[in-house]
Amino acid sequence: MRHSGSAPSVEPAGIADLAVALRGQVPRHCILTRTEDTRPYECDGLSLYRTLPPMVVLPENEEQVVAVLKACAALNVPVVTRGAGTGLSGGAMPHAGGVLLGLAKLNRIKSIDPASATAVVEPGVRNLAISEAAAPFGLYYAPDPSSQIACSIGGNIAENSGGVHCLKYGLTVHNILSARVVTIDGEIIELGSKAPDSPGLDLLSVFIGSEGMLGVVTEATVKLVPKPATACVVMASFDSASAAGEAVASVIAAGIIPGGLEMMDQRAVRMVEPFVHAGYDLEAQAILLCESDGTLAEVEHEVAQMRDVFHRAGATRLQVSTSEQERLMFWAGRKNAFPAAGRISPDYYCMDGTIPRRHLGRVLEAITRMEVEYGLRCANVFHAGDGNLHPLILFDSNRPGEVERAERFGAAILELCVEVGGTITGEHGVGIEKINQMCVQFSREEMDVFSRLKRAFDRPGLLNPEKLIPTLARCAEYGKMRVHNAEIRFPDLPRF
Amino acid sequence: MRHSGSAPSVEPAGIADLAVALRGQVPRHCILTRTEDTRPYECDGLSLYRTLPPMVVLPENEEQVVAVLKACAALNVPVVTRGAGTGLSGGAMPHAGGVLLGLAKLNRIKSIDPASATAVVEPGVRNLAISEAAAPFGLYYAPDPSSQIACSIGGNIAENSGGVHCLKYGLTVHNILSARVVTIDGEIIELGSKAPDSPGLDLLSVFIGSEGMLGVVTEATVKLVPKPATACVVMASFDSASAAGEAVASVIAAGIIPGGLEMMDQRAVRMVEPFVHAGYDLEAQAILLCESDGTLAEVEHEVAQMRDVFHRAGATRLQVSTSEQERLMFWAGRKNAFPAAGRISPDYYCMDGTIPRRHLGRVLEAITRMEVEYGLRCANVFHAGDGNLHPLILFDSNRPGEVERAERFGAAILELCVEVGGTITGEHGVGIEKINQMCVQFSREEMDVFSRLKRAFDRPGLLNPEKLIPTLARCAEYGKMRVHNAEIRFPDLPRF
Repeated sequence: MRHSGSAPSVEPAGIADLAVALRGQVPRHCILTRTEDTRPYECDGLSLYRTLPPMVVLPENEEQVVAVLKACAALNVPVVTRGAGTGLSGGAMPHAGGVLLGLAKLNRIKSIDPASATAVVEPGVRNLAISEAAAPFGLYYAPDPSSQIACSIGGNIAENSGGVHCLKYGLTVHNILSARVVTIDGEIIELGSKAPDSPGLDLLSVFIGSEGMLGVVTEATVKLVPKPATACVVMASFDSASAAGEAVASVIAAGIIPGGLEMMDQRAVRMVEPFVHAGYDLEAQAILLCESDGTLAEVEHEVAQMRDVFHRAGATRLQVSTSEQERLMFWAGRKNAFPAAGRISPDYYCMDGTIPRRHLGRVLEAITRMEVEYGLRCANVFHAGDGNLHPLILFDSNRPGEVERAERFGAAILELCVEVGGTITGEHGVGIEKINQMCVQFSREEMDVFSRLKRAFDRPGLLNPEKLIPTLARCAEYGKMRVHNAEIRFPDLPRF
Repeated sequence: MRHSGSAPSVEPAGIADLAVALRGQVPRHCILTRTEDTRPYECDGLSLYRTLPPMVVLPENEEQVVAVLKACAALNVPVVTRGAGTGLSGGAMPHAGGVLLGLAKLNRIKSIDPASATAVVEPGVRNLAISEAAAPFGLYYAPDPSSQIACSIGGNIAENSGGVHCLKYGLTVHNILSARVVTIDGEIIELGSKAPDSPGLDLLSVFIGSEGMLGVVTEATVKLVPKPATACVVMASFDSASAAGEAVASVIAAGIIPGGLEMMDQRAVRMVEPFVHAGYDLEAQAILLCESDGTLAEVEHEVAQMRDVFHRAGATRLQVSTSEQERLMFWAGRKNAFPAAGRISPDYYCMDGTIPRRHLGRVLEAITRMEVEYGLRCANVFHAGDGNLHPLILFDSNRPGEVERAERFGAAILELCVEVGGTITGEHGVGIEKINQMCVQFSREEMDVFSRLKRAFDRPGLLNPEKLIPTLARCAEYGKMRVHNAEIRFPDLPRF
C-alpha cells in the first residue's frame, strides 16, 4: 500500500451533479457513495496502488450503462470500468475524480448454441461459468487465466487474457467473435460478427486488450471448443535452464503444438514441491511440463513424439502421467507456484513479460546474473511455449531498500524482454503498473497513434484516463525512450 | 469496362509539383507518367472499374516510399498502394488525381528463421515464394488464396486474404507477427511484435485488412508452419444442398477441424467435371471435399471420423483419395471452378459473402429461389467450413438487362448474408465493389468510428480515399441503411 491515492476529502466537481443526473435512470441501490461501501473497490489485484472512488455505480442492464456513460460525457466525469477486479496491472484502479463502473450484475449467460459452438454472454459472467454451462454439450471456453474461477469475461476482453492453454487455443482475441459495446457518447456499436471474417476495419481486435479505454462491453459472443477426449502430461528434467529453453524450441520446431508447455526453474521447483508434493525432480535445474490433448490415438502418437524430442534435447529424466489424477497433480505444482512463493518469502513481485521462444535460455541466464546485481532471489515459472515469463522476485518489504531493489530488478527484466524483441506484458496488461515501460517499448510516433486511436472511440478522453498510454512528460521523467536500434546499445544480443 | 473513370485530359494539380519534389529522391526510371506506361495499372482484378493514374511510382526501397508519402502529404496528393494487382474488389484501382504506388520492386525475402518458424519479407514478395523459400526447412506459409502464385504478401495484408486452408490455419491476420509501416507523414512505426502478445492497442490487427487506408507496409514478419507429413481428401455426395450444409455443421460439431472443407452444388459440379475429369459425382445435388492433414496416424484416425460423420449425415456416396495424385485431382476440380464457368457462360460474377455455418442449407435454398426471380443461373462453390460463399452468377453481357440483373442478384445475396448474421465479404475485401453494401452491414455510428480510426493513422485522408468507408451521402443515395432488428423485417429468418 505504498502508492496510495488520497481519499477525496470533498466530493469532486461533477460527482454531485452526476448523482442528480442519474436519478430515475439508475436505481438508488445501484449507486454507492459512502466510504464503507466504496472501499472494496479502491484497488484491483494490484493492491500496491489504491484510490478511493467518489462514486461506484453497479448497473443492472445495458440501458443503465448507457445512462451512466451519457451522463458522464455530459458532465465531463471520468469512468473506470471494472469486471471482477482480479486484474494484476491496476487497469481497474479507480480515478479519484470519477465513477467506478462495476459490471458484476450483468452476469447472464444469454444463450449457448452447440451447433455453432458459440455462447452469448454478458460481461460480468465468470470465465469458468461459461465452461460449466457449456459442459453438457461437450464444449468449453478455452482461455484459462489462473484466476478463471473469479475473473469475468468482460475483464478478459479488456486485458486480452491468456492462460496455460493459449499456445494451442489462442488468447482471448482468438476466442471472441463479436462484442456489443457502449461508447462514452452512449451509442451502441457491434464489433466483429458471428461469421469468421468481418468487412471494414477490425475494430474488435483493437478493442480486445484496450484495457477499458475505448468503450464498455455489454454483451459478447464467444467461441466454444470441443472438450478433448483425453490428455496426458510429459514432465522432462534438464541440467540447465538453457537446455530446457532449447527443448521448448525443439518441440515447436518438430511441428508439435502442445495443449500447454510450461517451464519452472530449480528455485521454483524447490519452492513448490514441499508444499504440493507433485512429484517434481528436485535435482533438475529446470523442468518442463508438456501436455498433449485430443483423441486417444492422437495423444499416444504425440506423447511418443514429445518423449523423443526431449530425449534428443538432453532430458535427464522423463515422466509421463499415467492417470488423470497424476496429470492434475503435475499441474497442481505449477498452478500453486504463487501461493508457494508466499510461504518462503514475506513478499514477492510477479512479473509478466514475453520474449521470442528462442531467447528463453539466454534471458534465464541474464536473470540469474541480475539476482547477484540486485541482491534478491528470483523463482521462474514460464508459459514457455508462448515465451511468456512470470519471474517471481522474492523480497521482504520490512528490509530497507528491498522494495526499491525489487522494482528496479523487475524493470530491468522487462527492458531485457524488449531488447530481445519481446514485450513488457504477456497477459496481465499495462494498466498503471507498466505505464513507464511503455516508454521503452514504443516510439513517440507509435504512442501518438495509440492516443489518436483512443480519441477515435472516446473523443472526450474520459474512459480509464491516465492508464496504458504514457504522456510525453511521463516518459521524459522516467528518462527512457525506446531504443530503435538494439544492436547498437546491446551489441552482444542477437537481433531476432 | 462499364464503369470507367475518364483519363485526365490535363494533369491534375499537384502531380507536376510532385514530379519536381521527387527529383533526386526517387530515380527517374521508377516514375511513370506516359499513358502507355501507366495503362497496365488502370485496374486490379476487378476489371469492371478502371481509372488511368496520372503518375505511377515504383520505389526500390523504404527510403523512397518515405519520400513519396512525405511529398504527397505536403502537396495533398492522394495515394493508392498496389501489390500484385490481383485483388477482386477494386482496392488498388487508381485515383484519377493521385499517385499509384506500386510495391512490386520491394520483393526481397530478408530472412527465414526455422527455429522460430518465421520469415521476414518485403511487401512485394509473392505469397507462394515464401513457401518455396521455406520448403527446405519443412515449413510453409499457410494462407493460400487461389491467386497465391501471383499475389503479394503486402496485398494479402491489405485484404486479410484467406484460402482453402484458413479454417484450420487462420486468415492472414492470424499468420502475421509484425509489420513495419510508413504513415502518410513519412513516419515509420512497428506494429505487433515477434512475441505472441503485444502490449498497448492492437494496431497490427486493425491494420491487417484495412485495404491500404492506414499506411504502407515495407516489411512483415510472417509465421511459418510445419508441412504436414501426409494429407487425404474425403469426398461426400448428398441428395440436397441443405443435407450437405448440415453435414458441414456436423463435422465441426464432432470436434474435427479439417485442413479444408469445401462444398460445390450440382451446377458447379456439372460445370467443372467435363473440363477437369476430377471424378466428381454428377448425380449428387451437392458434394463436400474434406481434407485431413497431419501425421499418418492422425490422418487415418480423422478420415475414419469424417467418414462416420458423413455417413450419419446421409451421404449418398463416399470416396477417399488413395494417393497424392488422386488428392490433387479432387482439388483440381474445385480450384478450376472459375475457368470452368468461363467455358459455359460468356460472363460470370463471382460473389464473396460469409454466413454462420448453420445457415448454409437455408441460404443455398434462397439462392435457388433467386435464380427464378432474377432469371439467371448461379453455380455455388463455398469455403463451407468457414461459411464463406462464392456464388458464381452466370450471365451474358450482350443480352439486354442481364448485367443489371446480375448486379441486383449479387446485391440480394450479400444482403441475405447480413440478414442471417454474416458479412458482405469473406476474403476479397470491400474496395469499391462493395462500398454500397457497407451501408447495409454497418450503422452510421459504426462507420463514424471507422472514419475516425482512419484519421488516427492518416490525418489528411490521402491514403486510398473513397474506398471501403461509404459517405453518408452515398448510403442515402443507395437507399439502404442497416436494419438493426432483422427479426422485424425478415420474420421467417431465425436470429443467430
